[in-house]
Amino acid sequence: MKILFIGDVVGSPGRDMVSEYLPKLKAKYQPHFTIINGENAASGKGITEKIYRQFLESGAQAVTLGNHTWDKKEIFEFIDDAKYMVRPANFPEETPGQGMMFCKQNGMELAIINLQGRTFLSPIDCPFKKADKLIEEAKKRTQFIFVDFHAEATSEKQAMGWYLNGRVSAVVGTHTHVQTADNRILDEGTAYITDVGMTGPYDGILGVNPEAVLKRFITSLPVRFDVVEGRAQLNGVIIDIDNKNGHATSIKRILINDDNPFFD
Amino acid sequence: MKILFIGDVVGSPGRDMVSEYLPKLKAKYQPHFTIINGENAASGKGITEKIYRQFLESGAQAVTLGNHTWDKKEIFEFIDDAKYMVRPANFPEETPGQGMMFCKQNGMELAIINLQGRTFLSPIDCPFKKADKLIEEAKKRTQFIFVDFHAEATSEKQAMGWYLNGRVSAVVGTHTHVQTADNRILDEGTAYITDVGMTGPYDGILGVNPEAVLKRFITSLPVRFDVVEGRAQLNGVIIDIDNKNGHATSIKRILINDDNPFFD
Amino acid sequence: MKILFIGDVVGSPGRDMVSEYLPKLKAKYQPHFTIINGENAASGKGITEKIYRQFLESGAQAVTLGNHTWDKKEIFEFIDDAKYMVRPANFPEETPGQGMMFCKQNGMELAIINLQGRTFLSPIDCPFKKADKLIEEAKKRTQFIFVDFHAEATSEKQAMGWYLNGRVSAVVGTHTHVQTADNRILDEGTAYITDVGMTGPYDGILGVNPEAVLKRFITSLPVRFDVVEGRAQLNGVIIDIDNKNGHATSIKRILINDDNPFFD
Amino acid sequence: MKILFIGDVVGSPGRDMVSEYLPKLKAKYQPHFTIINGENAASGKGITEKIYRQFLESGAQAVTLGNHTWDKKEIFEFIDDAKYMVRPANFPEETPGQGMMFCKQNGMELAIINLQGRTFLSPIDCPFKKADKLIEEAKKRTQFIFVDFHAEATSEKQAMGWYLNGRVSAVVGTHTHVQTADNRILDEGTAYITDVGMTGPYDGILGVNPEAVLKRFITSLPVRFDVVEGRAQLNGVIIDIDNKNGHATSIKRILINDDNPFFD
Ligand SMILES: [Fe+2]
Ligand SMILES: [Fe+2]
Ligand SMILES: [Fe+2]
Ligand SMILES: [Fe+2]
Ligand SMILES: [Fe+2]
Ligand SMILES: [Fe+2]
Ligand SMILES: [Fe+2]
Ligand SMILES: [Fe+2]
Repeated sequence: MKILFIGDVVGSPGRDMVSEYLPKLKAKYQPHFTIINGENAASGKGITEKIYRQFLESGAQAVTLGNHTWDKKEIFEFIDDAKYMVRPANFPEETPGQGMMFCKQNGMELAIINLQGRTFLSPIDCPFKKADKLIEEAKKRTQFIFVDFHAEATSEKQAMGWYLNGRVSAVVGTHTHVQTADNRILDEGTAYITDVGMTGPYDGILGVNPEAVLKRFITSLPVRFDVVEGRAQLNGVIIDIDNKNGHATSIKRILINDDNPFFD
Repeated sequence: MKILFIGDVVGSPGRDMVSEYLPKLKAKYQPHFTIINGENAASGKGITEKIYRQFLESGAQAVTLGNHTWDKKEIFEFIDDAKYMVRPANFPEETPGQGMMFCKQNGMELAIINLQGRTFLSPIDCPFKKADKLIEEAKKRTQFIFVDFHAEATSEKQAMGWYLNGRVSAVVGTHTHVQTADNRILDEGTAYITDVGMTGPYDGILGVNPEAVLKRFITSLPVRFDVVEGRAQLNGVIIDIDNKNGHATSIKRILINDDNPFFD
Repeated sequence: MKILFIGDVVGSPGRDMVSEYLPKLKAKYQPHFTIINGENAASGKGITEKIYRQFLESGAQAVTLGNHTWDKKEIFEFIDDAKYMVRPANFPEETPGQGMMFCKQNGMELAIINLQGRTFLSPIDCPFKKADKLIEEAKKRTQFIFVDFHAEATSEKQAMGWYLNGRVSAVVGTHTHVQTADNRILDEGTAYITDVGMTGPYDGILGVNPEAVLKRFITSLPVRFDVVEGRAQLNGVIIDIDNKNGHATSIKRILINDDNPFFD
Repeated sequence: MKILFIGDVVGSPGRDMVSEYLPKLKAKYQPHFTIINGENAASGKGITEKIYRQFLESGAQAVTLGNHTWDKKEIFEFIDDAKYMVRPANFPEETPGQGMMFCKQNGMELAIINLQGRTFLSPIDCPFKKADKLIEEAKKRTQFIFVDFHAEATSEKQAMGWYLNGRVSAVVGTHTHVQTADNRILDEGTAYITDVGMTGPYDGILGVNPEAVLKRFITSLPVRFDVVEGRAQLNGVIIDIDNKNGHATSIKRILINDDNPFFD
C-alpha cells in the first residue's frame, strides 16, 4: 500500500499547488490513498465546505485538520456530514465531527486518525490515551493505520512516534509548517516524520506576510496575518507499507519549490 | 569561506560522534571555521570547562549555547574566560559571558552571534533588536557574520531569517533537536535553516530516554530525564560563503546515522 | 456545619503557624471539619508522611494538595495509604492516591474533592468533567461537598465556581498564595473565593526568598528557591453550611499576620 | 496626599459604576488624585477616545492601561495626544503613547507609571529595569510616585512590590480582575496590593458571560466573549501618603457590590 500525504495547505497559493501538482504526484507515485491536511486551506484559517469538496474532487480520499479546525464558522454546519474529514480525535467527547475514518481501495482498508498535541496548545484530552482507544477500535477492521499528529513540540511528536511504534503504519507530524529531515522507519515498522511541512507560500513565515509577523515579534502590537502572495511550495511524504503486515517499508519526503523543482 | 556547524551535542553519545566524525567532516569539506552548539554537551544539561576545551581541541573554533547554558553551576566560573564561547546575546546586560565573538583564519574574520528566541522560552531581551546592535558592531570589522538562533517556534526562527536576510551570511536555528529540510539561500544572500538538529542518541526523544519522556507526557508526574544509550547520530550544516561580499552561496545539510551513513 | 480551611502551608514557618493558631481558631470558630492544603508543607515543595501525620494530630480531618503533590519522592510510598489526603482528582486514572474522600463528624458526612486547573499548568484531565463525575458519586452519600480548586488563572477559578454553583457547598481556590477579597455566596448557595492565600512567611514572595525570586525575574538565570525566615502569616476561610440543604450561608476570610493580629 | 485608584473598568456596566460612585467616593475620601485603569472600558477590549474623555470629565486625573491597550484600532489615532493616559512603559521604545506622566494638584506633583508583567503575557522589555529608569527620571521632579503594575502572576507582582519598596509611594497590581486581600504598607514605606480588582459586572467571569467562558474551558472551541449584563461592582483602593517623604501610611480596599453596599 502506498499513501501520499500533503502537509498543511495554506490559502489559495496552497490550493493552487494542490491543483497543479496532485495529478503529477499521483501519476508519479501511484498512491492508493491521498490525504491532505486542510486546517489552513481557507485564507490560512480553517476550511470551508467548498474547499473540502475541491480536495476530494482533486483526488484526495481524506482531509485531516488541527488546531485551526474551528476558525471558519461554517465548519459547524458541515463537519458532521463530512465523511472524509477527520478533526483531532482528542477533543472532548461531544465535539462535532469525527477523529477517525476508514477508507477502502482495492480491497484494502486504511484507518486515518487525527490527534492534537497539548504542549504549547489547548489542554484537550490526552492524545496518547485517545490513540490507544482508537487503535484498539481500528485493529478490529484493519492492520493499516495512519496517524496525523498535529503538534508543536518536537518532543511530544517523537514521543508519539515511539509510543505507536509497531502499532500503526505511520505517524506523521503536522502544524509547525516546516518539513523536518528526520523521516525514518522506526524499529518496529512505523514510518515517522516530525513534521511534513506546509503547502503554500514559499516566501512567507509559515505562509504569512513576513512584515506582519516581524511587526508582531518586535512590537508586541496586534497585527493582521494574511497569506502572502507570490511563489509557492508543496510539502508532503510518500509512504510504502507492506501489505502482509501493515508495517511501513519506506517514507520519502516530497518538497516542491523553485529551489527543488518537480521531476516526473 | 566555508563554515561547518554541528547542532546541539547531547551528552557523551554526542561528544563521541564529534570525536569520531569531526576529523572526517573536516577532511571532506575543508571548512575554514567549525562551530559546535554545546548547550547539552554535559549529560544533556549545560557544558563544563573540560568539555568546552575538548571541543576546541577536536578542531572547533567556537562553541555556541542556548537556554541550557546555565545548567551546570561551574559555567559561572569559566564563562568569562572562555574566549571561544558565545551564549545567547540577548540575556540582560550584566549576564556573564559574551554574545558575540570574532575568529580569524587565513586573513578572514568571522563574527559569530548567538541569540535566543522568546516564544515558549524565557522573556529575555528582544533578539531582533539585539541582532541589529551586534550586526552594526560586527560590520565595522567584517562582512562575514554567522548567527545561531536558538529558538522553539518555527515562526520566530523564519522571522529572524527574513529579518537578517542580506545583512548576515547565515542564520541557522537550533534548540528543537530535529533537523529541518528547509535549508535555502534567501533572496538577498543569507543561508537559512530552521533547525540544524542534534548530535547524540539516535533512538531517544531529543536525546532523552523515551520511557521517561512518555511517562511525563502521559502521567504529568515528575521524571528524571537521562541521555539514552545506544546508537548515535550527528546533525550539521556546511555553508559556502562568497569571499567577495559575504553572501552565502550554498547551505547543505549533514545527517549521519545508521540510516544515513557517512561517505567520504 | 462549619468548615475551617487553611491555605497552602509553606515550610516550617507555615507549619509553626498551624501549630500555634489552629487550636485558637478551633476554639474560636468550633468547626466540624478542618482542612489544610499541604502541597508546600515540606520546605515549600511537597509533603512528607511525617508532616501529613502532624497535620492530622494538630486537629485537621483532611489534607488537600496541588501541583506540588509529587515534589518529595516519598509521597509515592505513603499516598496510597493516606486515607485523609486528597490530591488533584483530575490527574489520569492510574495516578496514585485519591481525588475525593469522605469524613464523618456528629453524624454528618462531608465529601472533600481536590481538583487542579489547566491554564498555565500541566495539561491533565478536564477538571470540570471530573467534577461532574465526582459530584454524582458524592451525592449518593451526602449533600455536603467541599472543593479545593488548585489553579492559577482567576478566570478558570471563577468558571469553576459558577459551574458548581448550587451543586456543592463550597469552591475555594488555592495555588496563587495570595488571599482574594471576593469571598461570597453564589446565588444558588455555593460559598466561593478565588484564592484562600497561603500560610507561611509574611515577608517573602509567595513564601520564597525575595532576593532569589527577583534575581530570577531580572536575570532569567537559574536560582534556588528557599522558604524565607522571619515573620509568618496564616490565611484561611471559615464556611457556614445549612445542615438542611448543604447550601452555604457564609464564608469569611481569616488573615493572621503582624498587621492583622488574631483576636479570640 | 491621597490617591484613589479604580481597578480595570469593564464595558458599560463598569463605566456606569464609575459615573455613579466616583462622585460619592470623591466626596467621602477627598483624594487629591484619582486614577482609573481603563484597558477594558470599551466593551471589555481596549478604550476609545470618547471613553477616555468621559473618565477625565468624571473626575479622574489619569487613565492607566494594560495588555488590552491596543484592542480598539482608534487607540493609534489618539494615544499620542492623550496627555493623561499611560500605557505599559516597558513596551519597546518606538511604541506610541507614554509610559509615565506627571500631574499636579495643590502644588504637589505625582508621577504615574504603568508597567506590564511578562509571566504568561507578551515578552516585552523588562519591567524591573524599566522601572529603575523611570523612577530615576521621576525623582528629579517629585518624591510621589504611583505604579500600576499590570501582570498575571502573583509572584511577579509581589516581586515588583519588594523591588520598589522604599523607592515609590505605591505599587498596585491590576489585570487579574479579582481584588486581593493583601493590601499592606511594606517596611520601607511603599503601599502594596497584588490586585485591585475590576469595576464592572458582578455576576460574570472577570466581567464576561459565564456561559461563553465555561464553553471555552470545557470544549476548547472558539467562543465570543461579551461583557455580561446585570448587577455591577466597583473595586478600588485609597492610599494615604505622607507629604513630607512620599511614604505611604495606609492603603485601604474599596469594594462596592450588592453584598458590600457603599456607605458615605
Ligand atoms: Fe497549519
Ligand atoms: Fe496547526
Ligand atoms: Fe539543545
Ligand atoms: Fe535548547
Ligand atoms: Fe501552593
Ligand atoms: Fe500550587
Ligand atoms: Fe483588565
Ligand atoms: Fe489585562
